[in-house]
Amino acid sequence: METYDILAKVKSGDISVEEAEQYFRKKPFLDMGYAKLDTHRKVRSGFAEVIFCSGKSDVHLLNIFGKLYEEDGEVFGTRASAAQYEFIKKDYPNVQYDEISRIIKIEKPDKKKVGKIAICSAGTADIPVAEEAAQTAEYFGSHVDRLYDVGVCGLHRILSQLDILQSANCIVAVAGMEGALPSVIGGLVDKPVIAVPTSIGYGASLNGLSALLTMINSCANGIAVVNIDNGYGAGYMATQINRLGVKNEVKV
Amino acid sequence: METYDILAKVKSGDISVEEAEQYFRKKPFLDMGYAKLDTHRKVRSGFAEVIFCSGKSDVHLLNIFGKLYEEDGEVFGTRASAAQYEFIKKDYPNVQYDEISRIIKIEKPDKKKVGKIAICSAGTADIPVAEEAAQTAEYFGSHVDRLYDVGVCGLHRILSQLDILQSANCIVAVAGMEGALPSVIGGLVDKPVIAVPTSIGYGASLNGLSALLTMINSCANGIAVVNIDNGYGAGYMATQINRLGVKNEVKV
Amino acid sequence: METYDILAKVKSGDISVEEAEQYFRKKPFLDMGYAKLDTHRKVRSGFAEVIFCSGKSDVHLLNIFGKLYEEDGEVFGTRASAAQYEFIKKDYPNVQYDEISRIIKIEKPDKKKVGKIAICSAGTADIPVAEEAAQTAEYFGSHVDRLYDVGVCGLHRILSQLDILQSANCIVAVAGMEGALPSVIGGLVDKPVIAVPTSIGYGASLNGLSALLTMINSCANGIAVVNIDNGYGAGYMATQINRLGVKNEVKV
Amino acid sequence: METYDILAKVKSGDISVEEAEQYFRKKPFLDMGYAKLDTHRKVRSGFAEVIFCSGKSDVHLLNIFGKLYEEDGEVFGTRASAAQYEFIKKDYPNVQYDEISRIIKIEKPDKKKVGKIAICSAGTADIPVAEEAAQTAEYFGSHVDRLYDVGVCGLHRILSQLDILQSANCIVAVAGMEGALPSVIGGLVDKPVIAVPTSIGYGASLNGLSALLTMINSCANGIAVVNIDNGYGAGYMATQINRLGVKNEVKV
Amino acid sequence: METYDILAKVKSGDISVEEAEQYFRKKPFLDMGYAKLDTHRKVRSGFAEVIFCSGKSDVHLLNIFGKLYEEDGEVFGTRASAAQYEFIKKDYPNVQYDEISRIIKIEKPDKKKVGKIAICSAGTADIPVAEEAAQTAEYFGSHVDRLYDVGVCGLHRILSQLDILQSANCIVAVAGMEGALPSVIGGLVDKPVIAVPTSIGYGASLNGLSALLTMINSCANGIAVVNIDNGYGAGYMATQINRLGVKNEVKV
Amino acid sequence: METYDILAKVKSGDISVEEAEQYFRKKPFLDMGYAKLDTHRKVRSGFAEVIFCSGKSDVHLLNIFGKLYEEDGEVFGTRASAAQYEFIKKDYPNVQYDEISRIIKIEKPDKKKVGKIAICSAGTADIPVAEEAAQTAEYFGSHVDRLYDVGVCGLHRILSQLDILQSANCIVAVAGMEGALPSVIGGLVDKPVIAVPTSIGYGASLNGLSALLTMINSCANGIAVVNIDNGYGAGYMATQINRLGVKNEVKV
Amino acid sequence: METYDILAKVKSGDISVEEAEQYFRKKPFLDMGYAKLDTHRKVRSGFAEVIFCSGKSDVHLLNIFGKLYEEDGEVFGTRASAAQYEFIKKDYPNVQYDEISRIIKIEKPDKKKVGKIAICSAGTADIPVAEEAAQTAEYFGSHVDRLYDVGVCGLHRILSQLDILQSANCIVAVAGMEGALPSVIGGLVDKPVIAVPTSIGYGASLNGLSALLTMINSCANGIAVVNIDNGYGAGYMATQINRLGVKNEVKV
Amino acid sequence: METYDILAKVKSGDISVEEAEQYFRKKPFLDMGYAKLDTHRKVRSGFAEVIFCSGKSDVHLLNIFGKLYEEDGEVFGTRASAAQYEFIKKDYPNVQYDEISRIIKIEKPDKKKVGKIAICSAGTADIPVAEEAAQTAEYFGSHVDRLYDVGVCGLHRILSQLDILQSANCIVAVAGMEGALPSVIGGLVDKPVIAVPTSIGYGASLNGLSALLTMINSCANGIAVVNIDNGYGAGYMATQINRLGVKNEVKV
Repeated sequence: METYDILAKVKSGDISVEEAEQYFRKKPFLDMGYAKLDTHRKVRSGFAEVIFCSGKSDVHLLNIFGKLYEEDGEVFGTRASAAQYEFIKKDYPNVQYDEISRIIKIEKPDKKKVGKIAICSAGTADIPVAEEAAQTAEYFGSHVDRLYDVGVCGLHRILSQLDILQSANCIVAVAGMEGALPSVIGGLVDKPVIAVPTSIGYGASLNGLSALLTMINSCANGIAVVNIDNGYGAGYMATQINRLGVKNEVKV
Repeated sequence: METYDILAKVKSGDISVEEAEQYFRKKPFLDMGYAKLDTHRKVRSGFAEVIFCSGKSDVHLLNIFGKLYEEDGEVFGTRASAAQYEFIKKDYPNVQYDEISRIIKIEKPDKKKVGKIAICSAGTADIPVAEEAAQTAEYFGSHVDRLYDVGVCGLHRILSQLDILQSANCIVAVAGMEGALPSVIGGLVDKPVIAVPTSIGYGASLNGLSALLTMINSCANGIAVVNIDNGYGAGYMATQINRLGVKNEVKV
Repeated sequence: METYDILAKVKSGDISVEEAEQYFRKKPFLDMGYAKLDTHRKVRSGFAEVIFCSGKSDVHLLNIFGKLYEEDGEVFGTRASAAQYEFIKKDYPNVQYDEISRIIKIEKPDKKKVGKIAICSAGTADIPVAEEAAQTAEYFGSHVDRLYDVGVCGLHRILSQLDILQSANCIVAVAGMEGALPSVIGGLVDKPVIAVPTSIGYGASLNGLSALLTMINSCANGIAVVNIDNGYGAGYMATQINRLGVKNEVKV
Repeated sequence: METYDILAKVKSGDISVEEAEQYFRKKPFLDMGYAKLDTHRKVRSGFAEVIFCSGKSDVHLLNIFGKLYEEDGEVFGTRASAAQYEFIKKDYPNVQYDEISRIIKIEKPDKKKVGKIAICSAGTADIPVAEEAAQTAEYFGSHVDRLYDVGVCGLHRILSQLDILQSANCIVAVAGMEGALPSVIGGLVDKPVIAVPTSIGYGASLNGLSALLTMINSCANGIAVVNIDNGYGAGYMATQINRLGVKNEVKV
Repeated sequence: METYDILAKVKSGDISVEEAEQYFRKKPFLDMGYAKLDTHRKVRSGFAEVIFCSGKSDVHLLNIFGKLYEEDGEVFGTRASAAQYEFIKKDYPNVQYDEISRIIKIEKPDKKKVGKIAICSAGTADIPVAEEAAQTAEYFGSHVDRLYDVGVCGLHRILSQLDILQSANCIVAVAGMEGALPSVIGGLVDKPVIAVPTSIGYGASLNGLSALLTMINSCANGIAVVNIDNGYGAGYMATQINRLGVKNEVKV
Repeated sequence: METYDILAKVKSGDISVEEAEQYFRKKPFLDMGYAKLDTHRKVRSGFAEVIFCSGKSDVHLLNIFGKLYEEDGEVFGTRASAAQYEFIKKDYPNVQYDEISRIIKIEKPDKKKVGKIAICSAGTADIPVAEEAAQTAEYFGSHVDRLYDVGVCGLHRILSQLDILQSANCIVAVAGMEGALPSVIGGLVDKPVIAVPTSIGYGASLNGLSALLTMINSCANGIAVVNIDNGYGAGYMATQINRLGVKNEVKV
Repeated sequence: METYDILAKVKSGDISVEEAEQYFRKKPFLDMGYAKLDTHRKVRSGFAEVIFCSGKSDVHLLNIFGKLYEEDGEVFGTRASAAQYEFIKKDYPNVQYDEISRIIKIEKPDKKKVGKIAICSAGTADIPVAEEAAQTAEYFGSHVDRLYDVGVCGLHRILSQLDILQSANCIVAVAGMEGALPSVIGGLVDKPVIAVPTSIGYGASLNGLSALLTMINSCANGIAVVNIDNGYGAGYMATQINRLGVKNEVKV
Repeated sequence: METYDILAKVKSGDISVEEAEQYFRKKPFLDMGYAKLDTHRKVRSGFAEVIFCSGKSDVHLLNIFGKLYEEDGEVFGTRASAAQYEFIKKDYPNVQYDEISRIIKIEKPDKKKVGKIAICSAGTADIPVAEEAAQTAEYFGSHVDRLYDVGVCGLHRILSQLDILQSANCIVAVAGMEGALPSVIGGLVDKPVIAVPTSIGYGASLNGLSALLTMINSCANGIAVVNIDNGYGAGYMATQINRLGVKNEVKV
């Protein structure tokens, strides 16, 4: 423990008070050891580092992938291309790739999943984003129920799944075009809803900006919004919330 | 009939072919007599001229009001202020003013109303715009059913009124904030839905632009959109559609 | 009839009141049978399900195409690519494809068309969107008159077709660039005008957003707007309106 | 219990199966009794109805205020003006008003507060929004720690409060201008952060739109965003999350 | 003549070549005497300095007004308030103020007007901007024909005035809301059209931005656009163009 | 002359007054013969029809090209690709293509050019748009002076060409990025300046929108703006203006 | 010195190594003493705390004003209203207020000013922002040369001041409307230019956003931009730059 | 010296005063010889002309590259493609190309670097822009310290480098997505910070516009912003500032 060592040396006289003072003046941020703290946090909370693969060179990606795999015994990447998968597979034949969510991973077997997150998509075209959320949440240990193609233009589809919605600790609502799904769900449940606008649509959808605005303006309570197509971010935050709800279930 | 007269004079030799040719080269637009045609159209279709009162001076407004009243025996103005009402009332004591819709009018008694238009508002704050639509449609002879405060955050409210929605020739759906109501209604009916975004909201509602974008991007079929807060425009078009449906009922 | 069956069993004592109560608490949305209702609605109103082909995988598209064809004996898809057409043609040699509107379909022969919709395009570049509207309306049984390349920069073109415009139950006005056509038409007719902005243009056309704003701000009465390039949506709503007008003609 | 009653009458033969079928066909949405359910939900979850006072007439507001007070024995309104407070005070002398958050309420005494939410504001000008969040969360039974004026331009302010941040179940981060606070906090904690952009700023702050975009684009994990100035929405969702975390603490 | 003087002194030896070189290195911009040149240009072209009154203090405005009046024997100001007029009138009782265009001026009597500019407004609400254009053009010596309230929703109004339009050297087309008037006029004439968007409208008119975009995207030839409500700028440029056309008429 | 013929037949009794009335009611727009009038206008004003080649199919383009060539003995197209040129060249070996301006044409020899238009570009990257303007103006018979790469960051470049600028009847100022050139030129000349924003730039240039806004907001007098990259439109309008100035020179 | 004390106590055994470790884990941010450091930085660099007065209550402002005055013997506030000045004046009769820049201050007498900053405004309406910049820079000890009303539409005005521009360590260029001034100045000097867009303008100036975009897109080298109307920020940064240049002059 | 020559000839009588006057009236801008001055400025300040390679044809680029190399003995280009590098390499085998920054150059050996600029990037994806800034600054003779991947979501990374930040004359802060880095740095240093938004991000990052807005709205003092991805501009201005700070160090 670095801080301890410095202090012990002060006590023993190995370094002077002045030298130590200089050290703490400059080093506190390292001394708090955020990198280390990050490791602690990962161990404690189960949120390992994740790779955003898009735009990374093959070699660069491979090195990061390998390093994280080495550190944690598992590794998870988002927005990977099929070509990136093929490249990594040469060195890591046990890597898995899902073409729809574009997630690449090596995952420890028999991972226990707890609690429940309901992940809804308005249309079938929103499923890639919903799957990014779902698989992120599952990788981080959440149980996920998928409710896909339950958009507001055919209300019976979402209404027939009320049981599932109302039993989840958190709902992720993924929608493009007019993005109305989170508002409708927000009125049906008493748990937080994370709204994910998607870039699905055309014309005045403005690549998802319209859906984002719809969701930000929702008149339903208990809704907050992440970036367009940010399934990963929604899955991550949903897991944070699910864990809060799960602590209780686990202990009781 | 002006055109006829000219032609008759050509035939009779009262004016030369060259003179008439000159006339038709210049006058066809008058000869088609749009101003007259407008009068004809009013008589035929029942759409009298309407006054947009906002921004007009008291005297200017009074003159237009009087002239139209004289012509049609009734008159209808939108976006009138209480002060404008007080000013007009001095000369026309029988004028009526509705503070909510800001409509000012003198209306013929016992006006027959036909067909049915359902006018829905998402919240109570949208009612002024919805009332502008409703009273416009009623002035032009449509029967109107009002379904107010039926926003998507409490679905049971709109769902409990399905009978009314499904029996209308046309639905006007008025909503601010996220503007999701038209999409939900569009999925429940098989008649055209006219969507009216309102400027109700704050922050990212962008004075109604967000609701407008939501409605334009609707994934439901049979929805078209008018300008923000344009209750009048929606009531007018709904009446056009209602009349098409009504012709049938009346005659059979 | 499911609801009836449950009730009959309650009466007969086959299931308890408590069991039935539980059923209605959860199932009303299914009990209202929206999926069934949808089928009913299709049969009743003639609006069969339509496929938005863009972005669908070949296999996915083929399955949906086949299923709908099987169900209805005809099928209609929008925004199909030539490659998608070639793929489907292998299994369904009787499929038709229109390169301009990008519509793919198998249509029942001798379909009766009723009423009249006038579909206008401002320029020749807007014709693909106009054709999507026209063929949608025709598929759903409307008679369509096409008035193409009648933009406002050469007024005589639209003015010379007044007869056709004024005899339609509904007008669809398709325009890119400045998008002024619907306003001009709105002033010439007494029927509803559905305005379709297109992405045709460059620079400050903002991919159709400028045309959309023009149309939303129209000072003419009886105009409502659909999404940029949404010919299908306009054709659908025009058919809804046309049918209202047609009921009368048919019956009398 | 309405559903039960109907079913009992079917069983007893008081009403026929056909009559009951008709009832369930039309009434399921009432039968599900959302309004009642809402009451149940309130009792169960403690989220009573809240009044958005802005724009309501004095009389209208007074009636709603009175009705909710009568129903729940307490009542809570946001965005109230001092004048509205004076008006209500005449009938309800025990009403409380906070000029900063613009919250008006009558609250039951000795309300127990559980869990912990940390509510941070970047500047002093953001405090009204932060207070709306804080008092909302407290009204709904959450314990709140306030960390105000801890913007990113003087990092030591937020860093010196790490203990408080890291022990909360949920953090609400309120910021105007560049809106960078949530990103910095998101990197320091492992709980969800609800980001609230405010309209504080000038020029290119675009009335809070810039801060909203900053927050939506955050590269930190576990952040979601509500509407500009929507302190109420953040306080509500934070309470939902806090309750999930609290269930555990309470029971253990 | 300053340049001449320096050069003469160089020749005479009164100043050295080095001194003169230093002078020309620093002074050429003054030596070109733009301020003087401006005076020359005014005399030559008739474009006197104009005052943008909005936002100027009474005293400041009065001084500028007086100075320009002194210099030219006449003076012209735009966007003046009634209060500014009252203030100036005390010192200059012969000042004229037009409440509609908000132009304040003292003008030389019997000013000759040449050529022809047609100034059109779409609606009556656009007249203040159109009048600013018209009176600017008249002040600078152009003959102006006014065609007001000739918007595209009633085409006969503009079509009946073709003679006037086609005989002008330049057309100024002023329109708010959808701003379609310039496109229609552009298709009817072979002279340049200066398009002026106005801030008239509501909702998605975006304070004139929509009309501006419409005009910029016009598919008609011979159209260019000035700022929203910039009647002065249009009147100025129209006069520049009119003078080019007039030179010919005057001389022949 | 069609109108004359009808009238003559009325006079002679060959057709009845009623028949003629019917004709004029329907035909005035054809009778005014805009298509014919267009031909007249072309002959009179020298503005032949121009082809916007971009997006046209090879065969479609070839047919239009051929038809216009046949009619006028020359033909002019903008935004043509090299491939389109190769295709047309097979049938019209005398066609000319300029890779920079992307103009394709067959032009009559020894075309007389009159007046003067100065066409300025801020940078070298703006030259394609400037050339489209220049060659358009030349095709329509204007004399053009080119001043390229005279942007405001090196003022001496434009200042050294004042003679040319000040002797032109009209200036076209083409600029991307910050688009400041027209404002600087507007302050140096007393003739109209047509400002052309280009899509040259990156980042916050927003594909030319920033330059467009700069130009619209110019504080210099005598500036109006066309669409982004619309060199053709600027060259056309500049020619209209130049012709007004030229009439004089030619005759005197 | 706090850190020293802790370390001395560790050495002396007054506190254990573990206690000290705990201290440094929590306190480093306080131990780095940013608040103290801020005081040090002020003393060292001369940048005292500044008050943004706008929106602060009278009492709140008075307290902050007094506290800072007490601490530094001088105090400086921006965006103060006349009413705020009157309120403060009661307690601090020596306070100075400038109505144009809206700066309120008590300043130490005989403040030495070093280096040179040139502050330019395009128009007279931009002077309030320019003065905020100028007086900020002067308060922080910079010598300022003011060049006002030197906009690009009359180039001779700025060109005649080249000597002043080129001898400054830094230039602040303030402009509204099209905002072209910084680009022109950037091409004339070899020192950094801080560009300040102002909200001066109307219509498409979008409250300064257009000018901001112009400046961000400048093709001149050595330009960076601050927020709309942010004269204070420009004066502050210009002083930072001026001090770098001044260190040299002072010492040599 | 041209001016001197003219003046000498006036003195000697070789040319008349009138001829010289004519010369100075027309030529002052040339006489000031900006092109020459530019050369002088380069020699004096070390800022040689730089090539923006993107979009230039191979031959065009090669010629400019050669000419500048010939003039200065070194040459520097930004935004070069690998293909452009290969083309230039044929003629200039000593050319260097950096794939990350896309900078192409021939640089004089043993270039002395002075002062210090700290260049920070928030993420690894921002490094290309940061490198463009760094290598530009180095080419122009600045010493550069690189601090990459120090984004605000892991504060310890930037805090651990405070020494480097605080010893620089100027900081360049490069960030995409939410763009919060400059605000955090601005609070930690007392030197100017040049903020560079990048186009890194997705969804609501709007290609860097969000980051730009964040930076423009920064509440930290001493920050100004350049265009999105404009590393070159930041490196250039940082060098201007660094030189001001360096003059002092060099001389003392």
